[in-house]
Amino acid sequence: MNRQWILLRTPVGALSTQVFELREAPIPHVGAGQVLIRNLMLSLDPAARAWMKVTSYRGQVMPGDVMHGFTIGQVVNSRSPAYKPGDVVECMGGWQELVLLTPDQLVRRNPNHSLDHLVSVYGITGTTAYHGIFDVGRVRPGEIVLVSAAAGAVGSIAGQLAKIAGCHVIGIAGGPEKCRWVVEELGFDAALDYKAAGFADQLREACPSGLDVFFDNVGGAVLDAALANLRMHARIVCCGSVSRYDREVPPPTSPLLPSVLTTRRARMEGFVVLDYTAQRPVAEEHLERWVTSGELKVVAEINQGLEHVPDALIRLLAGENRGKSAVQIGTLAH
Amino acid sequence: MNRQWILLRTPVGALSTQVFELREAPIPHVGAGQVLIRNLMLSLDPAARAWMKVTSYRGQVMPGDVMHGFTIGQVVNSRSPAYKPGDVVECMGGWQELVLLTPDQLVRRNPNHSLDHLVSVYGITGTTAYHGIFDVGRVRPGEIVLVSAAAGAVGSIAGQLAKIAGCHVIGIAGGPEKCRWVVEELGFDAALDYKAAGFADQLREACPSGLDVFFDNVGGAVLDAALANLRMHARIVCCGSVSRYDREVPPPTSPLLPSVLTTRRARMEGFVVLDYTAQRPVAEEHLERWVTSGELKVVAEINQGLEHVPDALIRLLAGENRGKSAVQIGTLAH
Repeated sequence: MNRQWILLRTPVGALSTQVFELREAPIPHVGAGQVLIRNLMLSLDPAARAWMKVTSYRGQVMPGDVMHGFTIGQVVNSRSPAYKPGDVVECMGGWQELVLLTPDQLVRRNPNHSLDHLVSVYGITGTTAYHGIFDVGRVRPGEIVLVSAAAGAVGSIAGQLAKIAGCHVIGIAGGPEKCRWVVEELGFDAALDYKAAGFADQLREACPSGLDVFFDNVGGAVLDAALANLRMHARIVCCGSVSRYDREVPPPTSPLLPSVLTTRRARMEGFVVLDYTAQRPVAEEHLERWVTSGELKVVAEINQGLEHVPDALIRLLAGENRGKSAVQIGTLAH
Repeated sequence: MNRQWILLRTPVGALSTQVFELREAPIPHVGAGQVLIRNLMLSLDPAARAWMKVTSYRGQVMPGDVMHGFTIGQVVNSRSPAYKPGDVVECMGGWQELVLLTPDQLVRRNPNHSLDHLVSVYGITGTTAYHGIFDVGRVRPGEIVLVSAAAGAVGSIAGQLAKIAGCHVIGIAGGPEKCRWVVEELGFDAALDYKAAGFADQLREACPSGLDVFFDNVGGAVLDAALANLRMHARIVCCGSVSRYDREVPPPTSPLLPSVLTTRRARMEGFVVLDYTAQRPVAEEHLERWVTSGELKVVAEINQGLEHVPDALIRLLAGENRGKSAVQIGTLAH
């Protein structure tokens, strides 16, 4: 049988485990041109909360659907010449053990990488950080770069990439421990606790001449604080807005918009990594070089077992993770 | 004597004539390297209201200062080899009859153009529209372009430039008469009255597949409505936010930000025409060709007499103008 997490109803407000149910379905029949994949590692992404709403970059996950999610899997049966059993792939495999897809829905992965690395730095997490920093943010050496959710999956890599590029990097994280970790373990120049009293003042003091780039994973009050510290020709990389996914009616954004963009000649630009598929091989080549040299640290918290997926996503949305969060539900067969 | 409008105090909320006073000052002495200019045409710009606040792209106009403003003037006396009496210039001449400047503060103008054209299409108004549409908006033929304050100085030119570029152009203006004028006189494809009930619905119906470019002079509720109709890879040109200049505490911006920029991969970018000085000759060459061919209509409402400047700015901020607003206080001497 194929165990699957079904979304029972569209969640309202903060996500709870009650909206999911673990069910069993028959193992799917492999039709001509189809590939059956065993999911080994389920990527947990804050955006999954947004996918349950109408306004997302993907079609909404509807009640009755298997919950969507990026996965690293291994082909178990193939009726396509493009893939053979044992091949390692990345796909939108969902919260389930087995998934039937077609070759156009699969990205072939290097089987020599660990599952931890495939789901984090070489997955959409690492490439999101890469394209956000270099293609949208277009950082230059010496620039002041601010990264929100700096202890998170994308933020932890984005900040390190900006450091590699020669920038002065300030992270924002929740709580003093995460802030210390971001500086001591990841090598950020500074980190600020957005939950601390006087956060806005601390931000102003941390960048007295303002920010060149803000890599934003959070939105909301943290974005509003950043908008008050833009340098001329600043860029805001709108990667995510995790502060808002769980809110039924998100609060409005800063009254500094749009005027501050005009007065500072600033650019605020959104992107989704799926638009950069063509550039992925080059991005991965760079990321691999920095991982190998030790310049880029990869941090992943891997949960074990399909039954823990909803819990782990809820902890992620509450900001209780460091680095990439994922759930391992199988191991590579050789 | 040199008559001048002095700002008496920093205005709070809606601008009134009470904050200005017309005074007389001695004719300035022309020092070495200086140029004395007689202002002939004072440009009225909504941004002048923002200059009276702290957060502007220029230094704040302080109480006791001659009110700032772009002007077209003619050199009356020069102690610089760069300029001679009779030369026509554009400068930040302020609300006064005479101004003493240095050559680096002057832009030489073609004396064969009319003062009306020099202050509008060949002044910062026309070049703002040009760079906003082509360099920030980067319009392509067939795209859907929305322009706010479409009956205004910059909007009326921006929309016509987008038409020349082969776009489908929708204007937004205040009241049915201005909307009719924007379509019938300026050749926009459609125009919507932002004061009408159901404006947001009308906007959605006017661009069922969404907007590629929004040239925004207004901010506020009109921007919020546009954000709900962005096509993939849409661009918002943040040119001005006239709906906000007169507000002491501007309202926050749409809760769609920043998420909608991510989901639509959209770019929101501010600019100030002064950053494009190097490209000005080429911009003016294009604008002149379109004016000469009749493709680009130039509309200017020229008030007469220095005593009417504050009144005319207040009418402009209330949206009671069509095309460029200016005040003529002298004529070209030949």
